[in-house]
Amino acid sequence: MSQAVKTYEGWFAYHDFRKIDWNKWKSISPSGRQEIILELLDAIAEFSSVENNNEGSFGQYAILGHKADLLFLHLRPNIDELNDIKTKFNKLGFAGITSNPYSYLSVVELSSYTIDPDTDPLSDPAFRERLQPILPKTQYTCFYPMNKRRLGEDNWYRISVDERKKMMKSHGVIGRSYSGKVRQIITGSIGLDDWEWGVSLFSDDPLYFKKLITEMRFDEVSARFGEFGSFYVGCRLTNEMLSSMLNDKTPDIR
Amino acid sequence: MSQAVKTYEGWFAYHDFRKIDWNKWKSISPSGRQEIILELLDAIAEFSSVENNNEGSFGQYAILGHKADLLFLHLRPNIDELNDIKTKFNKLGFAGITSNPYSYLSVVELSSYTIDPDTDPLSDPAFRERLQPILPKTQYTCFYPMNKRRLGEDNWYRISVDERKKMMKSHGVIGRSYSGKVRQIITGSIGLDDWEWGVSLFSDDPLYFKKLITEMRFDEVSARFGEFGSFYVGCRLTNEMLSSMLNDKTPDIR
Amino acid sequence: MSQAVKTYEGWFAYHDFRKIDWNKWKSISPSGRQEIILELLDAIAEFSSVENNNEGSFGQYAILGHKADLLFLHLRPNIDELNDIKTKFNKLGFAGITSNPYSYLSVVELSSYTIDPDTDPLSDPAFRERLQPILPKTQYTCFYPMNKRRLGEDNWYRISVDERKKMMKSHGVIGRSYSGKVRQIITGSIGLDDWEWGVSLFSDDPLYFKKLITEMRFDEVSARFGEFGSFYVGCRLTNEMLSSMLNDKTPDIR
Amino acid sequence: MSQAVKTYEGWFAYHDFRKIDWNKWKSISPSGRQEIILELLDAIAEFSSVENNNEGSFGQYAILGHKADLLFLHLRPNIDELNDIKTKFNKLGFAGITSNPYSYLSVVELSSYTIDPDTDPLSDPAFRERLQPILPKTQYTCFYPMNKRRLGEDNWYRISVDERKKMMKSHGVIGRSYSGKVRQIITGSIGLDDWEWGVSLFSDDPLYFKKLITEMRFDEVSARFGEFGSFYVGCRLTNEMLSSMLNDKTPDIR
Amino acid sequence: MSQAVKTYEGWFAYHDFRKIDWNKWKSISPSGRQEIILELLDAIAEFSSVENNNEGSFGQYAILGHKADLLFLHLRPNIDELNDIKTKFNKLGFAGITSNPYSYLSVVELSSYTIDPDTDPLSDPAFRERLQPILPKTQYTCFYPMNKRRLGEDNWYRISVDERKKMMKSHGVIGRSYSGKVRQIITGSIGLDDWEWGVSLFSDDPLYFKKLITEMRFDEVSARFGEFGSFYVGCRLTNEMLSSMLNDKTPDIR
Repeated sequence: MSQAVKTYEGWFAYHDFRKIDWNKWKSISPSGRQEIILELLDAIAEFSSVENNNEGSFGQYAILGHKADLLFLHLRPNIDELNDIKTKFNKLGFAGITSNPYSYLSVVELSSYTIDPDTDPLSDPAFRERLQPILPKTQYTCFYPMNKRRLGEDNWYRISVDERKKMMKSHGVIGRSYSGKVRQIITGSIGLDDWEWGVSLFSDDPLYFKKLITEMRFDEVSARFGEFGSFYVGCRLTNEMLSSMLNDKTPDIR
Repeated sequence: MSQAVKTYEGWFAYHDFRKIDWNKWKSISPSGRQEIILELLDAIAEFSSVENNNEGSFGQYAILGHKADLLFLHLRPNIDELNDIKTKFNKLGFAGITSNPYSYLSVVELSSYTIDPDTDPLSDPAFRERLQPILPKTQYTCFYPMNKRRLGEDNWYRISVDERKKMMKSHGVIGRSYSGKVRQIITGSIGLDDWEWGVSLFSDDPLYFKKLITEMRFDEVSARFGEFGSFYVGCRLTNEMLSSMLNDKTPDIR
Repeated sequence: MSQAVKTYEGWFAYHDFRKIDWNKWKSISPSGRQEIILELLDAIAEFSSVENNNEGSFGQYAILGHKADLLFLHLRPNIDELNDIKTKFNKLGFAGITSNPYSYLSVVELSSYTIDPDTDPLSDPAFRERLQPILPKTQYTCFYPMNKRRLGEDNWYRISVDERKKMMKSHGVIGRSYSGKVRQIITGSIGLDDWEWGVSLFSDDPLYFKKLITEMRFDEVSARFGEFGSFYVGCRLTNEMLSSMLNDKTPDIR
Repeated sequence: MSQAVKTYEGWFAYHDFRKIDWNKWKSISPSGRQEIILELLDAIAEFSSVENNNEGSFGQYAILGHKADLLFLHLRPNIDELNDIKTKFNKLGFAGITSNPYSYLSVVELSSYTIDPDTDPLSDPAFRERLQPILPKTQYTCFYPMNKRRLGEDNWYRISVDERKKMMKSHGVIGRSYSGKVRQIITGSIGLDDWEWGVSLFSDDPLYFKKLITEMRFDEVSARFGEFGSFYVGCRLTNEMLSSMLNDKTPDIR
Repeated sequence: MSQAVKTYEGWFAYHDFRKIDWNKWKSISPSGRQEIILELLDAIAEFSSVENNNEGSFGQYAILGHKADLLFLHLRPNIDELNDIKTKFNKLGFAGITSNPYSYLSVVELSSYTIDPDTDPLSDPAFRERLQPILPKTQYTCFYPMNKRRLGEDNWYRISVDERKKMMKSHGVIGRSYSGKVRQIITGSIGLDDWEWGVSLFSDDPLYFKKLITEMRFDEVSARFGEFGSFYVGCRLTNEMLSSMLNDKTPDIR
């Protein structure tokens, strides 16, 4: 048996992907739509307000392509709050014109692979900020879930902890070379959702997502052990952009 | 041919996952909703009553994420009762506002890998309680199905019974280190459902699900042989929480 | 090239799995429901009547879990009759309140692996009864499709016929040890449906399904070569049970 | 790099699988149904007429099981005609009561593996008939898509052309032993659809599909390299059978 | 760790596949249909206009088979514009009669494998035209996504950059032998969508798609490393063809 890695956990994360049923939306009267948008903005104000007291974080994004239209991303200290958010959202009029093609439940995670053993992470405020992060307000985000492979010779969970540490450090070097360009939040999801980790990237240039992940793919950790789910790329939405996305010119031809 | 392991079976388990159609729910009048909730609570009372006479067990949970909204978990002595429960539930008004994205049929199982050969398990009351368990009333649950891999060198079913026993004991050591923190009920499903086992975990802290399963994943049994399905995490629901989840503030904007 | 095994084929089998749309069912008036049930029972009487003249066989079962609610299982001498049955059933009022999530087309098959080469099987009445079997009237059934693996060293179709015969005999020994407890009907489906075989088990105790398949999984044929699809477990339905499943207490709350 | 095989292409093939929405069909008035059937038969007459001038071929079949109800199979000299057929069919009233669960786009293909190098195939009328075949009017058909495996040692595309030729000849010997019993049309689909080939078999006895494919599966080409998609088996439909399938006794109980 | 390849990126690409709901379309009045078509043609005029100022490109195609009916292909300098196009299209009346079964987000990519190291690509106008290409106005297109395999010995990301360059050059030789017959646009999608690349081919003869991809499949890069998604083949649509596809003879039998 290989030695398991020690991990530190912070806030739980709920990635809530939604697809808009535009036909249903267009069938609602203009005043009905306005009411729904106002109610949604109220809920968003409440979701966002946790950032004021450092009791969580919230972000909203327009997702490209057919897989989803919107991502509402919540960080909270426990899953009961995330469950309440789910129920509250589903009771909104806006939820009624969306479907929920994907979601992800995970928890912000730092592993001891890349932490200086001489520091006491839990007494370090910077470390606490990494476990309980306020979501970066960059223009773009990228989310994907991933596993570490367990296949024949390429079985991450049978590699010695020292080898794993060495590989993860090399991986970290690539990540740091994008410092200032891409910020990443790793969330663990073993026992919580269908993959072992979620990766959330934040940048003001979506090409950096491509460049960073490509470079990492040639690194041994990803080349030998990375297994990847679907990729979701989005543009950050202000409330004004969200309203205008829903409001402007929705012709209703019958 | 490897020697098959001897197993002991107890109550059958039916994990019934449901997703709420909130649009349908909101379209029902307040009094209609109330009627549906009362009828549902009546059925729940009946489902729960088996615990009084040790004729089964029942639990209800709010599931996180898009995969399901609710889990109704039934343990019963035979599958005819589980079939009757399914039909009875589908006839409830409440079933009409839900879909059934997943379910699992299995039977509580203890294997001889980890049982002291000097005891006669069937005459042991503690053993009987493990085969016919009352579901723990913890705040959180986690369910996932799994297989033992049969791939090239990593073929569980071609390993000698002694090696398997050794590996399962090591696995049991990890499990016992979480004693008091996580309770697990293993249900066998070969010949009953699409995976070989179901694992139901119960804890008052969902991080223990992550910690326990992660630690086990580095253990040879999981690292080499574990194949996992979807993970479902839920918060236990009292009847009050279930009513309030359905009742409070369901605006109906048209 | 390995020598292909000689097989004997009997009746074709059509496993027709149905899921009930309870909302649609509940929306029908009591007299409309009654009419639909009577029409269904008429069709069932016709389906069953083939057993009288040994021109086929028929069984009906309540399937557990979300994958299906009902199984109608037909054995007939040719696929034209099975196609007629499909069309006839789809024209029933009852079909209109069901969907058809799964089905399986196959043909009863005996292979020369386990047949005494000194007998002439075709002149043997017992052999004919195995190729044209009347479905056992046991309380439970279990159906699953399967393949023989073709992967690297574990390629069934490149093993010599003698080795295959030896392995199949060992498999048969396990099967016969359940004689009187489980009856199995093997149907071949290469060129007919998506897997290579269907396995239909019949027993008065569903635990025997689990015990038998588990024991076989440690046998080389299954351990190295078995690949399995979904498992469907059901309780046999008399016409009375089917009527009562549909009739009793279907509250219609709106 | 292995030498690619030279192929000859003929007519393009469009397998159009349809599932009937019987509820929608039953909801149409008898005269409306009649109108839809007549319009469909008109379209079928047009589809079939290409056979008169050797400008294509057409066949219609009732498909068994839940995967589809009907197959309309078109051979045409170019994909523009197949695209026009698709649009024309979708505009029929009949298309409105069907869904389109599967289709396949491919092109009749002969490979140089099995062609005598001393003949000039393009000047050979028999060869032209194999590339532009009129669909056999047998009672049954079987369609499945397939790939040649590229996995470790079993990588078809890295085998020398001579070895491939030897294996394909052995495969052809099996095929020819079914001459008069099964006719096969191989269509290539690399770059056209999701698998590399489609296989369409035609016979007056569906057991020959099982026997032929089983025998081939023990041959090295299939045993080592064959990967198979879904199998669709059908009964050929005359216009009378198609009308009667749609017309007879469609009770409409509400 | 293998050295990552340097890539150059140009315009982002959005492949928007749509399926027409013909029943919904037929249920709209002739004047309503006309209004929808005119609004669609207006949007298409706007989508196409970017080609005038070299600010992007646009193409529209009829897709064969059941996977989709239409492809709208957009090239633009950034993903914000692609997101705006998505929203704008979804607000069209035409979007309301379509579903969106597939899409692909990627970015035009040239890799340094096949670029002469002595040239400075960014100062080369021909190079810029390859990164910001106007879509070829050929009669047919073919799109498929692909990965480079990472499996055991066949792990592209662990091969030395020199070996990869050698293999890619050999691949390029095949591609160039189709010069004048097939034009290909490679788009990278690591970090943007679910596969690593999209391949868009353009030709006036769809058989060249088959011939080119088949030949490449015997080349080491594809034979050992290529993993392919679904293939979509289409016929280019002028506005007249699109109108006539929607307009002509849409009988509405009820």
